[in-house]
Amino acid sequence: MFYVIGLGLSDEKDITVKGLEAVKGSERVYLESYTSILMVEKEKLEAFYERPVITATREMVELEADDILKDADKVDISFLVVGDPLGATTHSDLLLRAQSRNIPTSIIHNASILTALGSTGLQMYSFGQTLSLPFYTETWRPDSWYPRLEENLRLGVHTLVLLDIKVREQSEENMARGRLIYEPPRFMNPAQAFNQMLLTESIRHPAPKPQPQFQSQSQKTSSDSEEEGEGEEKDPYPSLMSPSQTLAISLSRVGTSSQRLISGTLSELAALDEEEFGGPLHSVVIVGKRLHPLELEYAGKFAIGGENGDWWRVGKEVYGVERETFY
Amino acid sequence: MFYVIGLGLSDEKDITVKGLEAVKGSERVYLESYTSILMVEKEKLEAFYERPVITATREMVELEADDILKDADKVDISFLVVGDPLGATTHSDLLLRAQSRNIPTSIIHNASILTALGSTGLQMYSFGQTLSLPFYTETWRPDSWYPRLEENLRLGVHTLVLLDIKVREQSEENMARGRLIYEPPRFMNPAQAFNQMLLTESIRHPAPKPQPQFQSQSQKTSSDSEEEGEGEEKDPYPSLMSPSQTLAISLSRVGTSSQRLISGTLSELAALDEEEFGGPLHSVVIVGKRLHPLELEYAGKFAIGGENGDWWRVGKEVYGVERETFY
Repeated sequence: MFYVIGLGLSDEKDITVKGLEAVKGSERVYLESYTSILMVEKEKLEAFYERPVITATREMVELEADDILKDADKVDISFLVVGDPLGATTHSDLLLRAQSRNIPTSIIHNASILTALGSTGLQMYSFGQTLSLPFYTETWRPDSWYPRLEENLRLGVHTLVLLDIKVREQSEENMARGRLIYEPPRFMNPAQAFNQMLLTESIRHPAPKPQPQFQSQSQKTSSDSEEEGEGEEKDPYPSLMSPSQTLAISLSRVGTSSQRLISGTLSELAALDEEEFGGPLHSVVIVGKRLHPLELEYAGKFAIGGENGDWWRVGKEVYGVERETFY
Repeated sequence: MFYVIGLGLSDEKDITVKGLEAVKGSERVYLESYTSILMVEKEKLEAFYERPVITATREMVELEADDILKDADKVDISFLVVGDPLGATTHSDLLLRAQSRNIPTSIIHNASILTALGSTGLQMYSFGQTLSLPFYTETWRPDSWYPRLEENLRLGVHTLVLLDIKVREQSEENMARGRLIYEPPRFMNPAQAFNQMLLTESIRHPAPKPQPQFQSQSQKTSSDSEEEGEGEEKDPYPSLMSPSQTLAISLSRVGTSSQRLISGTLSELAALDEEEFGGPLHSVVIVGKRLHPLELEYAGKFAIGGENGDWWRVGKEVYGVERETFY
């Protein structure tokens, strides 16, 4: 049997009882190491599993998949994935290959950021498409995520943005010289993510001469663009994101004991020191206009500036959500 | 500590090692019983946990929350939820209440249908808003889910539809007479779900025989409306869903050993006997137009009619996805 087993979000004890049994009965145990990381060292996993763990790099999974699958029709092989095995990044490729070799497969699910983001208090139902934000460089700022974010914002739904990680990357020089020397792993910080997003926003929607007007959910795009900017040139695609009037939440180390959430406006969040968020892994949420009072209240517990933070002002004035007393 | 612990999707062994430790150390253990069900009896859980388990009904959670939280500042209390504790239905209400009582809380995440639907082979990134489909009656056919489905279809993203369950419901007669007699639990079957969805579709977009009275500038001929699903510009509100040209997938008992997925057109799926899908729990996915060849291939493994099924024809002709050879 070829087991693909989710490890959950935090440490060695987030594996399920069923998953642990499969690992302990496996002849070989691989740990997928390039789409996410666990908060514990491999050695700790090995001690807990009482099994050696083979690190599976991207190259190994893509080029030596048949080695990983070897003998899985006769003995049990476990392939471990942080989070859910089919969550953010699917390993359906490996599963399809196994099935084409008539190898029986079994998927043991676990928590992933996609469900754990419920910790923000935002309703899962109110999320739209999930995005991935890559690291920008001086010359390469891929913004294919932007139209999808706009689609979500236009509908008023929330957006989960997964932040890039770089594991086992080579520098250009080392790559050119064929040296297998890898850079230390890098994990995008929420401050960097918000600044990248605001950079792309400012390129896509350069500040107009008149004061930019932010759209509220109750106004339809078409009628809105007619109302605003009287006498001015109308922007057929008005900006849906504003540094000071769009709410967002950073999620750091979700599901671990050091989990940290911070909520505020985009500009508040972008201005924080990276240290404020602590270590990886991080992701961020852009809040949609269909914000519910209970969501505002729950996520407001993590607001920059506490009870006097911009979170509440923008929630009321821009999102149109009145605070309610729940208890 | 007040623990809210996800149980995962299938049986007693889907709890995480960390969750199991928390349960075993808890003074009282509650099992939330009204938003989902596990595939095992409560007695089996109790034997595995070596702890009595108190069934928490909706009334108990809503009316006697303080009893559940009692002493959680001094001893450990566990509140068990099928799937992820904050997945499909959040229990943020209970958590907010605990925090307002200065009770420390801890959330132990687990798999939920939201991540496990990766089993379809569809990419999590390509899903839009999640919907809930309630049971229809002769007189009550709530279709507030429909505009959200249309929003997803217009963008071309996939839609997860969670199907209603009725646990501890009273008949109208028993309720009127104040008799606390409950009906057997009911779980919506995918065949029923697809038929309900097609019913609402036919009401919202009746067959185009009569010309709409208040058609805007660009009139359409009735034959034009056959080409639906493409977001035609002529009809201001074209139908985006077609029985024979929209693809869907049913998911039954996802994450369990008896998991069954079936893919096909809406009309193929709606025509299946309920028995084809087996027992609960079920959910369904409506496939969006941004279908990727690898998604088509993976989900096509469960297609009605196999290699000759309508899945492939519609995938090519309507979704515009050419089959590729992967292995």
